[in-house]
Amino acid sequence: MVVVAILAAGRGTRMKSNLPKVLHPLGGRSLVYRVLDSVEALSPSRRIVIVGYQGQEVTTAMQTIPDLEFVEQTVQLGTGHAIQQLLPHLEGYTGDLLVLNGDVPLLRTETLKNLLQIHQAHENAATILTAQLANPKGYGRVFCNSENIVQQMVEDKDCTAAQKQNHRVNAGIYCFRWQDLAKVLPHLSADNAQKEYYLPDAVDMVSPVMAVDVEDYQEILGINDRLQLANAYDILQSRVKEKWMMAGVTLIDPNSITIDETVELHPDVIIEPQTHLRGNTVIKTGCRIGPGSLIENSQLAENVTVQYSVVIDSIVHANTRVGPYSHLRGHAEVGANCRIGNFVELKNTQLGDRTNVSHLSYLGDATVGTRVNIGAGTITANYDGVKKHRTKIGDRTATGSNTVLVAPVTLGNDVYVAAGSTITEDVPDESLAIARQRQVVKLGWKRKG
Amino acid sequence: MVVVAILAAGRGTRMKSNLPKVLHPLGGRSLVYRVLDSVEALSPSRRIVIVGYQGQEVTTAMQTIPDLEFVEQTVQLGTGHAIQQLLPHLEGYTGDLLVLNGDVPLLRTETLKNLLQIHQAHENAATILTAQLANPKGYGRVFCNSENIVQQMVEDKDCTAAQKQNHRVNAGIYCFRWQDLAKVLPHLSADNAQKEYYLPDAVDMVSPVMAVDVEDYQEILGINDRLQLANAYDILQSRVKEKWMMAGVTLIDPNSITIDETVELHPDVIIEPQTHLRGNTVIKTGCRIGPGSLIENSQLAENVTVQYSVVIDSIVHANTRVGPYSHLRGHAEVGANCRIGNFVELKNTQLGDRTNVSHLSYLGDATVGTRVNIGAGTITANYDGVKKHRTKIGDRTATGSNTVLVAPVTLGNDVYVAAGSTITEDVPDESLAIARQRQVVKLGWKRKG
Amino acid sequence: MVVVAILAAGRGTRMKSNLPKVLHPLGGRSLVYRVLDSVEALSPSRRIVIVGYQGQEVTTAMQTIPDLEFVEQTVQLGTGHAIQQLLPHLEGYTGDLLVLNGDVPLLRTETLKNLLQIHQAHENAATILTAQLANPKGYGRVFCNSENIVQQMVEDKDCTAAQKQNHRVNAGIYCFRWQDLAKVLPHLSADNAQKEYYLPDAVDMVSPVMAVDVEDYQEILGINDRLQLANAYDILQSRVKEKWMMAGVTLIDPNSITIDETVELHPDVIIEPQTHLRGNTVIKTGCRIGPGSLIENSQLAENVTVQYSVVIDSIVHANTRVGPYSHLRGHAEVGANCRIGNFVELKNTQLGDRTNVSHLSYLGDATVGTRVNIGAGTITANYDGVKKHRTKIGDRTATGSNTVLVAPVTLGNDVYVAAGSTITEDVPDESLAIARQRQVVKLGWKRKG
Repeated sequence: MVVVAILAAGRGTRMKSNLPKVLHPLGGRSLVYRVLDSVEALSPSRRIVIVGYQGQEVTTAMQTIPDLEFVEQTVQLGTGHAIQQLLPHLEGYTGDLLVLNGDVPLLRTETLKNLLQIHQAHENAATILTAQLANPKGYGRVFCNSENIVQQMVEDKDCTAAQKQNHRVNAGIYCFRWQDLAKVLPHLSADNAQKEYYLPDAVDMVSPVMAVDVEDYQEILGINDRLQLANAYDILQSRVKEKWMMAGVTLIDPNSITIDETVELHPDVIIEPQTHLRGNTVIKTGCRIGPGSLIENSQLAENVTVQYSVVIDSIVHANTRVGPYSHLRGHAEVGANCRIGNFVELKNTQLGDRTNVSHLSYLGDATVGTRVNIGAGTITANYDGVKKHRTKIGDRTATGSNTVLVAPVTLGNDVYVAAGSTITEDVPDESLAIARQRQVVKLGWKRKG
Repeated sequence: MVVVAILAAGRGTRMKSNLPKVLHPLGGRSLVYRVLDSVEALSPSRRIVIVGYQGQEVTTAMQTIPDLEFVEQTVQLGTGHAIQQLLPHLEGYTGDLLVLNGDVPLLRTETLKNLLQIHQAHENAATILTAQLANPKGYGRVFCNSENIVQQMVEDKDCTAAQKQNHRVNAGIYCFRWQDLAKVLPHLSADNAQKEYYLPDAVDMVSPVMAVDVEDYQEILGINDRLQLANAYDILQSRVKEKWMMAGVTLIDPNSITIDETVELHPDVIIEPQTHLRGNTVIKTGCRIGPGSLIENSQLAENVTVQYSVVIDSIVHANTRVGPYSHLRGHAEVGANCRIGNFVELKNTQLGDRTNVSHLSYLGDATVGTRVNIGAGTITANYDGVKKHRTKIGDRTATGSNTVLVAPVTLGNDVYVAAGSTITEDVPDESLAIARQRQVVKLGWKRKG
Repeated sequence: MVVVAILAAGRGTRMKSNLPKVLHPLGGRSLVYRVLDSVEALSPSRRIVIVGYQGQEVTTAMQTIPDLEFVEQTVQLGTGHAIQQLLPHLEGYTGDLLVLNGDVPLLRTETLKNLLQIHQAHENAATILTAQLANPKGYGRVFCNSENIVQQMVEDKDCTAAQKQNHRVNAGIYCFRWQDLAKVLPHLSADNAQKEYYLPDAVDMVSPVMAVDVEDYQEILGINDRLQLANAYDILQSRVKEKWMMAGVTLIDPNSITIDETVELHPDVIIEPQTHLRGNTVIKTGCRIGPGSLIENSQLAENVTVQYSVVIDSIVHANTRVGPYSHLRGHAEVGANCRIGNFVELKNTQLGDRTNVSHLSYLGDATVGTRVNIGAGTITANYDGVKKHRTKIGDRTATGSNTVLVAPVTLGNDVYVAAGSTITEDVPDESLAIARQRQVVKLGWKRKG
């Protein structure tokens, strides 16, 4: 049984932000949400976030998460003091406590599972996560015997020259047998330069303490400023992109591409440069996306191409071509073998198969059949200044260039609308609608001025 | 005389692809096509591709290449077995055999020329390409005397600690005197862990064998997965971009730019970030392209600017400005000193000099004269649902905003089309065409709802 | 008192350019202009640019800079010869001379201040800038005693193996007591392989000479080709982006973003990938800019979002959303809480608060009130072929889809323009304007062909 405590009370001054540090987004999710995510697979019996600075904002932002508890640390007197706040909440608890940091968002679930498993298998009083750093400057060093039992922990500034040769550092992630920790927590001292209560002091007071090395040192990196935030995003992105490349996705110039961890890509998808895939997006085999495209919360079926376009909250069926310069949004759904062309916006619009909207058109709140040809410059006037109305278009219908369809309006099957017409009334099947003036020519005309 | 054999029978499992590995594109050309390209300057008497896994797809993809031969290796029993398949095809041949890999696409022609030249000058039985790697792990090591005569080749896993200090590795590229090789090929043994016939065993059986170091170790990198494919693209792009920078082209943020090797750039061209130049594109002095543009198979004359636009299969004459957000395609040709503006698409359309299409227009299948002003929202209705028709516009003509030109239709010289007109009949020189209703105003009107 | 001399006479052959090397732009400003900029805070009494190759172009390009002097070096016989040209111009001058290179654009003002301050505090005859390079190959080495007094300067090619262990190099930036230098300048010799007069020889002839190390070796990098130009841009951009990140700006994928040094960003701005911020741009707290956007010489108030758009010479007030695919230019000003949508261009147009231009519109030379709704496809016909006219639109007015407003024209308050109308005459307050033909339907129609 494990309770998870997440330290989220710090000020985060170096972020220079009105937003609490742990709420800063990293690849679409906040830092602290990522930490919570990493422990989900451990099935903790309780999850407690220790809040302090801007605690109300943190609590509010996370209140929709079920069964999450918040404990307030009203003054920030160090990590030991933060964990002391748990004493009244964990009275009589006999399991383990996993202590995580709300600003260390890159830890993998496997790492935490391994830490917990070793902690429990060896019946340690405490087990701490350590890392081997090429440049350990600033980190406390951990000295162990050959069984990984911690012998000594020394702050960087207190290290002798010989001790500095040890590159094994304390990552600040701890697993405690709670009853052992609870006994020593009240005895922590703030007799140090910062006048703070440190959790490592509690580690010194229990036994046995074991250290477990993290496989990838990047997992332990904390976020203290926006440079570190950008660096963490880079690390996350490398993980995601490497995973998809190994799974058979071609990324052309991967450095210029971003892919949220929530995206699902199938083999033989090709992603062109400067493309961003976000949210609950699924892209199937044979698709070619980009350059310069943003796909968010959308499903693209097999062999879709999207070039220089934005597709949000939409569905595109197989073999359809989108772009350049299209914008699909508001639950647009485009059929198979369609052509969505240049300077076209679709909002809350459904298109049947083999329908084309090739140029300079806006279709909003429209239901369009199959094999329809929407002429260049066709616009659904879906808004009367008060509310939105729908446009319905049957199969095999065609609109001429610069057609306006004033909704609510229905065009039947096999209708043709003459170019330049503004359609305000329904048009029955197999008919021609026309609403324009005849052409007059004035000969011998000269431009004024 | 040299025959080239290209090994292209492997499965390429790690690509996780339906496409045979050697057909994967790298910067617009397939891996195996790149290998073929690298030997063109050697004027080989025959070029033989050894196919196996998905051999039919490989053969089909390359069947348009003249005089290319294919030999099938029906089961994949190693590189030695692959070359054994050549025995019936090269009976009596007295020249050399150059063995290349279809998945090693970065070899320079100069490297192969040098290998072949040394092979022939020294009358070697075999000459192998070697590389000095910083990290030779996994590669077979090559041990030579001071004259580069190979003394021993040892697999990485069989190397002693001392042998591992040798960083000279076998690149897997071989030149053989065919008659020597032909003699030993039948005697290869598959008495090894993989039960395969290895070509290096044949090297051991002939003499003398010389090694030639490649100058740039990156040339020997093979492609086994999409990470390596992305890495190879990065290497290729660095080569191309460095070449153009040294030739007087300014690349702003070169890492964000991609340039196909087939593109030609003149000095004092400036390429802005996130720009992609592809195919048979030529860009002349003084052009400024980007940011965010794609130019493919197009010719841009002096001092053209293109910003956030896509130009494909088109020609743009001097001093013309394109973009932001234009799309030229389908053999568009734009005259000198034109302005192609915002949200404009030109398809199979020719514009004379000093003609402007500045806003929200689609011109398809149009021939337009000089000093024409195409009003905002002008659209050529070039498609009647069955076929495409042409629009012709004379010199110094102007169309008003939201004009529709229903093709086939001709506007003469010095014509003016009133805004909002749909033009369905030809308009003679020096005349005004108008096709719209007069304006009516209803006072004291209140919006419904 | 200090006079600044800038060496700008060199040919710059490796740039392969028609533009003189020192005029090449780096992040929006020319190399030599950057050097001038770096000395501004030193308040030099005179600033002299020594020109030679393409001297006329250099002089012309910089003639708008007040009080800048140009001295011509008609033949290029080395750095010593260049400085000799100053002798007639500085007769009787008793202060210091700071010698800079027109192609070394990354020197920080603080570095030059420090050089000058040490020079003057120690009453040196000359003080030279040095750098510690990891790879000093090709650079002259500087040997000092423990007080940084220069003992010896040795060209790389003349260094002994022991001397090559010294990685302190001459950066080519000098501060001289002019009267000491003036005495020795006439005695320089061109008795060397290049037959040139070298300024370091003059350094050898005065005493005492002190060396001052630059803190960041990147400051001394010179620009000789476009690769070095790209590298310098990368260094500059890293400086700028690191500064803004430390000041509380989130950059998502900083490598893909460029920010001119003249841009001002407030905390809690978020910049998305592939975004470029240029010129005198100010972006306030809460803005989210990008991906794929270019903002130049523009002011964005709090909480503005811009996505895939170009904003040039424009102002956007708080909470307004722009894009995707908008273009603001020509002193557009957009009110607060507006929505500028898809495929919309605003040129020299002012919009009041809560006004929307959501789709496929071009507003040029228009003044628009508050709470206006501009329908999709609305176009201001602002150009009559001779000059531009203004369109005025009152408050709470709405235009229907595909409206053309033929300027000069005024729509009052609370006006509604019916979809598909071309408006040529003013419309008074609270009225409906309509200019279109009624719809006719022909039943049983079949498409020709």
